[in-house]
Amino acid sequence: MIRLDSTAPRFAADFTALVNARREADSDVSRDVAMIVGSVREQGDAALHAFTSKFDRHDLNATGWRIERSATRAALDSLDPELRAALELARDRITTYHEKQRPADSDTTDAHGVRTGARWNAVDAAGLYVPGGRAAYPSSLLMNVIPAQVAGVERIVMVTPTPDGEVNPLVLAAAELAGIGEIWRVGGAQAIAALAYGTDRIAPVDVICGPGNAWVAEAKRQLYGVVGIDMVAGPSEIVVVADGRNDPEWIAADLLSQSEHDPTSQSILLTDDAAFADAVADAVDRQIGELSTAEVARRAWDANGAIIVVPSLDDTIPLVNRLAPEHLELAVDDPQGLFAQVRHAGSVFLGRHTPEAVGDYVAGPNHVLPTGRRARFASGLSVLDFMKRTSFLALDPAGLAAIGPAAVALATAEGLPAHAKSVSIRLPTSP
Amino acid sequence: MIRLDSTAPRFAADFTALVNARREADSDVSRDVAMIVGSVREQGDAALHAFTSKFDRHDLNATGWRIERSATRAALDSLDPELRAALELARDRITTYHEKQRPADSDTTDAHGVRTGARWNAVDAAGLYVPGGRAAYPSSLLMNVIPAQVAGVERIVMVTPTPDGEVNPLVLAAAELAGIGEIWRVGGAQAIAALAYGTDRIAPVDVICGPGNAWVAEAKRQLYGVVGIDMVAGPSEIVVVADGRNDPEWIAADLLSQSEHDPTSQSILLTDDAAFADAVADAVDRQIGELSTAEVARRAWDANGAIIVVPSLDDTIPLVNRLAPEHLELAVDDPQGLFAQVRHAGSVFLGRHTPEAVGDYVAGPNHVLPTGRRARFASGLSVLDFMKRTSFLALDPAGLAAIGPAAVALATAEGLPAHAKSVSIRLPTSP
Repeated sequence: MIRLDSTAPRFAADFTALVNARREADSDVSRDVAMIVGSVREQGDAALHAFTSKFDRHDLNATGWRIERSATRAALDSLDPELRAALELARDRITTYHEKQRPADSDTTDAHGVRTGARWNAVDAAGLYVPGGRAAYPSSLLMNVIPAQVAGVERIVMVTPTPDGEVNPLVLAAAELAGIGEIWRVGGAQAIAALAYGTDRIAPVDVICGPGNAWVAEAKRQLYGVVGIDMVAGPSEIVVVADGRNDPEWIAADLLSQSEHDPTSQSILLTDDAAFADAVADAVDRQIGELSTAEVARRAWDANGAIIVVPSLDDTIPLVNRLAPEHLELAVDDPQGLFAQVRHAGSVFLGRHTPEAVGDYVAGPNHVLPTGRRARFASGLSVLDFMKRTSFLALDPAGLAAIGPAAVALATAEGLPAHAKSVSIRLPTSP
Repeated sequence: MIRLDSTAPRFAADFTALVNARREADSDVSRDVAMIVGSVREQGDAALHAFTSKFDRHDLNATGWRIERSATRAALDSLDPELRAALELARDRITTYHEKQRPADSDTTDAHGVRTGARWNAVDAAGLYVPGGRAAYPSSLLMNVIPAQVAGVERIVMVTPTPDGEVNPLVLAAAELAGIGEIWRVGGAQAIAALAYGTDRIAPVDVICGPGNAWVAEAKRQLYGVVGIDMVAGPSEIVVVADGRNDPEWIAADLLSQSEHDPTSQSILLTDDAAFADAVADAVDRQIGELSTAEVARRAWDANGAIIVVPSLDDTIPLVNRLAPEHLELAVDDPQGLFAQVRHAGSVFLGRHTPEAVGDYVAGPNHVLPTGRRARFASGLSVLDFMKRTSFLALDPAGLAAIGPAAVALATAEGLPAHAKSVSIRLPTSP
């Protein structure tokens, strides 16, 4: 953890270093991924079988290529009732929130009789990657599949690795609760390639979403353009803006809820109260020891944690906008004034009683958010990621007469005579 | 040009081959681009100077790094009045169309007192690539810059190569008309890298848009994630659905307006009238000879043109949706019935008096559209490409009490105790 004071002479340089720090593991996976993608494109299911044997240590022909509906039904039936109720609450609230994201079509006719507009359609098929093992989160499954369902995607395909052939019952239960009927037992870059290009067994999709390890992320990046993807994801982060009137134990828990995700996760406290900063730092150190995730949380906090003391809370705003954090908590009595000045953040949590973790699960907004300063230009996952817009234009002879000559002039100036002719040939005075 | 009959036994295979044909040049530019991007990232302006000397054959320190406002003003002042009026009509109509794309914020409080919503902001800075030489189109400049302006982007930077130091007066006039004040005389992958990472002279941007050659496109693809990009662009295409009651000369001109762009461009006619198909083919052959762009148009039509005869116009719909064309003309009396069945197309031109070229220039909808079947999942350029959404959440103690326990249950099941604690510590019954 580093501690900075925004009035110190070196602060500008230290903060810039914090902003620019690359937390990504610098492993060179791109060549491996290109090889895997190429193999799946050329050899299809045979490559899937071989890579699954190698990386997940099971024989797809023995374990089965698909996870059948009977298995997901059984997982949901045997789910703890409290957990089932929690998942149902999450599903319903996430659905309600995302239904407001459905875009409106437009259709306008102007004074010349020129009709223009736009119509939105869902993609035909979406692929959802669900990690295996420790990072297999039923909450992520819901956050990814619900926007696609609200968009109206007809075919939703899930792929998930089952290392050593073992499935994760909680994930299967969530899949059943979400109504996912097509689940393939494949993972890694090979699963992404199969979704993008299709194989004999797995029909291709149009958009691929969902979290994954570095290989999965790199495969999505390489196949962006062949298919649509949700985003380029990186390590996760939280910035907490808090005055001295918070309970340091609450804020420490918030910081640790980010740190426990991954050693690359980043938690930053911005406060105008140096004594409160000390108290939070102490509380973090004490709480870490109580966590079953202590090892990860300690590595993340030690390497990437930061506490920055500023003269006044208004001074946090330029810092927040430079950091463009995935998650931002504004733990003050009246957060609205600060929030109005925030330009770049994935999701904002307002007030003292809004821990970020509620947003991870049940509040409604999506928890798939832009990381690594990408909130400067990117948004969280939404219904729009599973839809696309077709613009349209309709002219009658009068409308063409009104605006066609300008098109002829520009096409001619650009040296495109067939463009000009396709318009002029339809004009009444055309030679 | 290939001619297909949808009732022929081999049609399914032939059509699939047409859909899957890769028109992209198979050049391996990715290594060169990676090298250029790396050099600019490390050496900044020195790399820009060296690559400009090498590729554009002029010395930036002699010609000047920027194109000054005085030069763009002079270009606009000396522009032909008819062209100026055409550009102004285009600018105003494009602006009016894109103003309807501004997204609405949301802010809702539910029965538990849980407040959720989303707020849109423009990105801080956008970079616009404008090609030099033959493909320098003022219309493209307007189509790229106006959505950014309507979005409210404060800083808009244009980069454009000036081969041998020569500028394109029409592009400079359009830049002045659009009010672009920051123009750098650099192009190629090196310009994209400079916009993404910044140099001493050029501050970095958040989103990069605009057309370019294979190097530019590959640089944008490689830097996607560091910045936002408009899209992965490929060769352009048009599909024309026409009955036999069209003038074959009109439809031939429409097909050629696509073919004249580039040898990789594709034009496809779908019709239910074999005699009309013959007449169009004849008209294309005759009109090509009249074009100053004949050489390009002939190469494109010979290599990638297609005429497909179907039993009825309804049979064109599945073919259109497989092709997911960038441009689609529905040249029939009542296009609305066909249009309702189109799921995948970038932009649709309805009726006999709506040549696609009007949409390229002055109608209002954007001409930057998904190519190469990407309309399956992608949309044309819009105001949304220059904005991003911040979701938000606000809970009071009652709201947290209502939904918090479900978050605690899910966090615990997922093995994330700090997530659970950050919620439970704020609940009244917390231990």
